Amino acid sequence: MTSTGTWTHKDFISIEDITRDELEILFKLASSFKQTLGRSQKKLPSLRGKTLVNLFMEPSTRTRVSFEIAASRLSADSIFISASASSLVKGETLRDTARNIVALNADLLVMRHSAPGSSLYLSKIIDIPVINAGDGAHAHPTQALLDCFTLRERWGSDFSGKKVTILGDILFSRVARSNIWALQKLGAKVTLVGPSTLVPEYFSAMGVEVSHDLKRALVDTDALMLLRIQHERQTSTHFPSLREYTSMFGLNAMRASWLKPGTIIMHPGPINRGVEIDSKLADSDHSVILEQVTNGIICRMAVLYLCASAVNPVSREEVI
Amino acid sequence: MTSTGTWTHKDFISIEDITRDELEILFKLASSFKQTLGRSQKKLPSLRGKTLVNLFMEPSTRTRVSFEIAASRLSADSIFISASASSLVKGETLRDTARNIVALNADLLVMRHSAPGSSLYLSKIIDIPVINAGDGAHAHPTQALLDCFTLRERWGSDFSGKKVTILGDILFSRVARSNIWALQKLGAKVTLVGPSTLVPEYFSAMGVEVSHDLKRALVDTDALMLLRIQHERQTSTHFPSLREYTSMFGLNAMRASWLKPGTIIMHPGPINRGVEIDSKLADSDHSVILEQVTNGIICRMAVLYLCASAVNPVSREEVI
Amino acid sequence: MTSTGTWTHKDFISIEDITRDELEILFKLASSFKQTLGRSQKKLPSLRGKTLVNLFMEPSTRTRVSFEIAASRLSADSIFISASASSLVKGETLRDTARNIVALNADLLVMRHSAPGSSLYLSKIIDIPVINAGDGAHAHPTQALLDCFTLRERWGSDFSGKKVTILGDILFSRVARSNIWALQKLGAKVTLVGPSTLVPEYFSAMGVEVSHDLKRALVDTDALMLLRIQHERQTSTHFPSLREYTSMFGLNAMRASWLKPGTIIMHPGPINRGVEIDSKLADSDHSVILEQVTNGIICRMAVLYLCASAVNPVSREEVI
Repeated sequence: MTSTGTWTHKDFISIEDITRDELEILFKLASSFKQTLGRSQKKLPSLRGKTLVNLFMEPSTRTRVSFEIAASRLSADSIFISASASSLVKGETLRDTARNIVALNADLLVMRHSAPGSSLYLSKIIDIPVINAGDGAHAHPTQALLDCFTLRERWGSDFSGKKVTILGDILFSRVARSNIWALQKLGAKVTLVGPSTLVPEYFSAMGVEVSHDLKRALVDTDALMLLRIQHERQTSTHFPSLREYTSMFGLNAMRASWLKPGTIIMHPGPINRGVEIDSKLADSDHSVILEQVTNGIICRMAVLYLCASAVNPVSREEVI
Repeated sequence: MTSTGTWTHKDFISIEDITRDELEILFKLASSFKQTLGRSQKKLPSLRGKTLVNLFMEPSTRTRVSFEIAASRLSADSIFISASASSLVKGETLRDTARNIVALNADLLVMRHSAPGSSLYLSKIIDIPVINAGDGAHAHPTQALLDCFTLRERWGSDFSGKKVTILGDILFSRVARSNIWALQKLGAKVTLVGPSTLVPEYFSAMGVEVSHDLKRALVDTDALMLLRIQHERQTSTHFPSLREYTSMFGLNAMRASWLKPGTIIMHPGPINRGVEIDSKLADSDHSVILEQVTNGIICRMAVLYLCASAVNPVSREEVI
Repeated sequence: MTSTGTWTHKDFISIEDITRDELEILFKLASSFKQTLGRSQKKLPSLRGKTLVNLFMEPSTRTRVSFEIAASRLSADSIFISASASSLVKGETLRDTARNIVALNADLLVMRHSAPGSSLYLSKIIDIPVINAGDGAHAHPTQALLDCFTLRERWGSDFSGKKVTILGDILFSRVARSNIWALQKLGAKVTLVGPSTLVPEYFSAMGVEVSHDLKRALVDTDALMLLRIQHERQTSTHFPSLREYTSMFGLNAMRASWLKPGTIIMHPGPINRGVEIDSKLADSDHSVILEQVTNGIICRMAVLYLCASAVNPVSREEVI
């Protein structure tokens, strides 16, 4: 069991706030949690009696279920509050909603919200841990964690000399932003590629290479992260048509042949087969898409565990 | 631990049915539950293995979540059945729905329904406890419990000589009715105030003072209960406009200055800042709005525990 | 406790795949679970730490809640994924959804889906148990289990010489199909009756008698299974009007008088009083409708327990 003595964050808002050493604490804890997944009795007692509120002001079954299973594996109870079902929320300010959740004696708040900065804002006004499960186009830090954890299982803890290419709708992607921060902290070089409307030059200020030449980006990368095309976020100005995207940037057999033999193919899911990625490639040995899903459970367990511990120190024997 | 030997109610339908001594049993048990909220391990084993069904034929995230957390703190499992999701309910009579819930081996039924008397009706035809979580404009007894519990924490168990003013939409308010019954049983004097369309004279038959003079009602009260303005329940005949209500009856700084120094300001939430109450006043030291939310958990724990015990006596050691 | 040594099915897809001996294993286990329902502490530790995903691509509160309670009684956690809430599912193939659920480290998948064969399909591509909670008009095997269990409580394990009549919309009914298979395996003779548009002659290929003469079918039956009239599945070609159905095939007092004294009346619920069945008859001593609901819990417990054990053998002491 990793010592968690150096973890001090009550909240998990953005990878920007997390040092490389802290990423290492998270990954080592996640790694130890991974060994419990195969057990017949998978529950750890660590957060028994704690209540996690999943406040999803934007729908996301995938992320919500992942947090719910992570909480359950740590013996916490989950309460799900959706935007639509929420009279808690009707006519109420976000601050009031959050303070009510605290008054309901919740111990952890996981929030998905369309407004960038909303999780940060709440983390400053309430005392319980706030976990950002996606705030607009800003950040989705647990997604970056699970992506980097998946790469780390293959590459070890030092990503120096590794090149990662992120392909697709960077402009609107919280996944891309969070991964850029995480990958760079771990030592990797990041290239963004896609149509110029979706991958504007100004991203180079983040220290990444911006490219619109797919072939050049693919031939030299160690991992390729595809992003989901999210119609609902795009305006017609940025994005002409799905078919046009697929024909120019979709990963098909021909383009995959440009990749080096061991290149890892990733996707945050759910995948649109035949749009961002050819169906066969999604199922190929290069793809780690389902491993990402599994690693999401254990990375979220690590985040919940560490943030809860920062508020209420948990004795070490209670883990594992 | 309070003896619960004198509690005999299988159901919790209306404060009208509860004696002052029984209120005292509830409050004392709630008080002992309150001490468990701050613990690291907050769950009590009292209702382990029991299943509570939350049948909400009208939406209410706030009350539903409060009951769900209360159940979970007593180690019971909750099943949520919403009106919209409910094929259980489609084309089925309420009696059949309730009998099916019993046949599903549920142990407790919490119901919110638009029809006054619906909880009472079910309590007579099924053997498991029925808890009224709001039946139309009739009653919302657990709200009155938590309101009075909050006052009792400041005033002690005897409310004699205390004056409580309820301000707002009394006509359509189950919260007002339940609080009138509870406050009077505890010894307080109750004044209702608001526009005459929303506070009709005939309420004086309940033993309360009916007033349309806000200033006179405010200068002499020890606690001020605001009610939420519920647009969906009002017809245009009773209620001209939100702005008009706010200008004449909204609690603003000027009107708050009429209050005596220690007056307690309450609101069942969710609050409409700038409508029923000025934003600063909601956050002032006078306001106990968030305490009310916390006390809702423990009062509901007490109700669930006592009603379940009335059906299946629980040994006293199992509590606390 | 029944030995479960001879149960080898990972999945529970259709009664067609189950032998009579296997039905007996299920019924005996369900019977032993039934004794636990009345206990104060009803939870068995058998599936503690396991996660069941309830994937309902068609709504069904009744069946979903029954599985959720069954899981909870075996100490498993349930995650509910509805079609509407499911971004997991949006644009995703059913195969990808299922593989993601496995990657989320779920242990059991219960699925309701409109496509016949969908559960079978998933059972072949994923390693965790798949339980069919209804696949289009094909099968609803746990409904047949609970129906036959209810009859077995009265008739014993051998149904030889017993006659069961199924009345109503056979054409579109997965309940009818599953019951035909189950009843015949147990030795009963099955008669189908209803309007010729809803009970076509070709059903006789299943070894049942097809009749359009209600009186002849009723006078000689030991149990009468009514089916729910499901408007949403019928086209106007097959089904003129509810009133016409009721007038010709609804079970009313006159028609019930044709039944032999001890005939058992069953209905899978929710009942439309005054449509398929007269209100008084639904509540009469002949009706076992609510017993069916209770038996649904324990039969589903047996299915979950046995299928989970087929994947991960559970030591026998863990049960009961």
